[in-house]
Amino acid sequence: MRIVIFLFDGVTALDAVGPYESLARIATSEVRFVSREAGPVRTGDGFLALNADAQFDDIGEADLLIVPGGNVRGIRAVLGDPATLDWLRVIDATTRWTASVCTGSLFLDAAGLLTGRRASTHWRARAMLANYSPERVTIDGKYWTSAGVSAGIDLGLLLCAEIAGREVAEAIELSMQYDPQPPFGTGDFTSAATAERVAIIERELRR
Amino acid sequence: MRIVIFLFDGVTALDAVGPYESLARIATSEVRFVSREAGPVRTGDGFLALNADAQFDDIGEADLLIVPGGNVRGIRAVLGDPATLDWLRVIDATTRWTASVCTGSLFLDAAGLLTGRRASTHWRARAMLANYSPERVTIDGKYWTSAGVSAGIDLGLLLCAEIAGREVAEAIELSMQYDPQPPFGTGDFTSAATAERVAIIERELRR
Repeated sequence: MRIVIFLFDGVTALDAVGPYESLARIATSEVRFVSREAGPVRTGDGFLALNADAQFDDIGEADLLIVPGGNVRGIRAVLGDPATLDWLRVIDATTRWTASVCTGSLFLDAAGLLTGRRASTHWRARAMLANYSPERVTIDGKYWTSAGVSAGIDLGLLLCAEIAGREVAEAIELSMQYDPQPPFGTGDFTSAATAERVAIIERELRR
Repeated sequence: MRIVIFLFDGVTALDAVGPYESLARIATSEVRFVSREAGPVRTGDGFLALNADAQFDDIGEADLLIVPGGNVRGIRAVLGDPATLDWLRVIDATTRWTASVCTGSLFLDAAGLLTGRRASTHWRARAMLANYSPERVTIDGKYWTSAGVSAGIDLGLLLCAEIAGREVAEAIELSMQYDPQPPFGTGDFTSAATAERVAIIERELRR
């Protein structure tokens, strides 16, 4: 089970690490982090680098491709880079499953892979997908796309069940002690208070 | 707001990335990943390296120290390394908050920082803490300790509220779309089926 996770400058760390953390626990899985060039890849805030052990040239196929999202600058750079979109198409042509977290679905769409398919993305990017799905994880054919950031954990566990069976996935969920207690209950963007919170995001948070 | 996250060979990536992902969104925060020596630090499965931009010599103080857990080999190495336990004590003496995720609390305890205090840890390590608390996040004085792996996300958001106020923390929870849907509902170790799942963890999952 060859799992390939794409990295790029500006990536959101939890988008990549969320599904990795469950899928790497399957004994038969091999996970490789891949970027255009091998080496440290910085997150959007610059505080963390995840290492890409491999680069595009090294990886020509995968059983499962996972595409995380990132910050606005990182998204724009990927969307404007034909070499990255080409590589995503090449790998996708070999996969049993192609998955994305957060705005990673915008890259799959730009590569022409989501045409006519329903897909999830970060709620703030939903206008950018023609067939946006509000589901936390949307499955359309071999394309498994998830909503923003933390939704990659749910995606990863669902993929664990698909790959290794439900009992193994249940055990992985237990090993990650995934019994979440969101402290504020504000993660759902359909709340009436979302507009006020978006104002705080725009005004007060780091981009 | 100087946030320092400790890394070590064998670290569990989500333990470190979970709280980082929320705390880095506070505009005034600066996050530094620190290990005994600077450079790439491998997770327990070896598939991912998180970069430590700083080493112990570089960092003598912090407002918030975060200590993640790891696999058995990694835990043993840290517990047997007096230089690491010394450094944890030195930094802790300067913090407003000292926090841990998963088995990271074992390091704080070994450094003598949790004596007489209630603390959380990964449920499978609960016998290793004299004053184990089954809460997902336990606050005892300035020590904020969380349960296993994914509990670090809840810890991070609670710390965001403590540092930047509840409204900012609510906005961060929304920006991370943290409206979790655990696929199997098996993350709580008090379930009657836990013994069977532990057998699967022991027999079938990667360590």
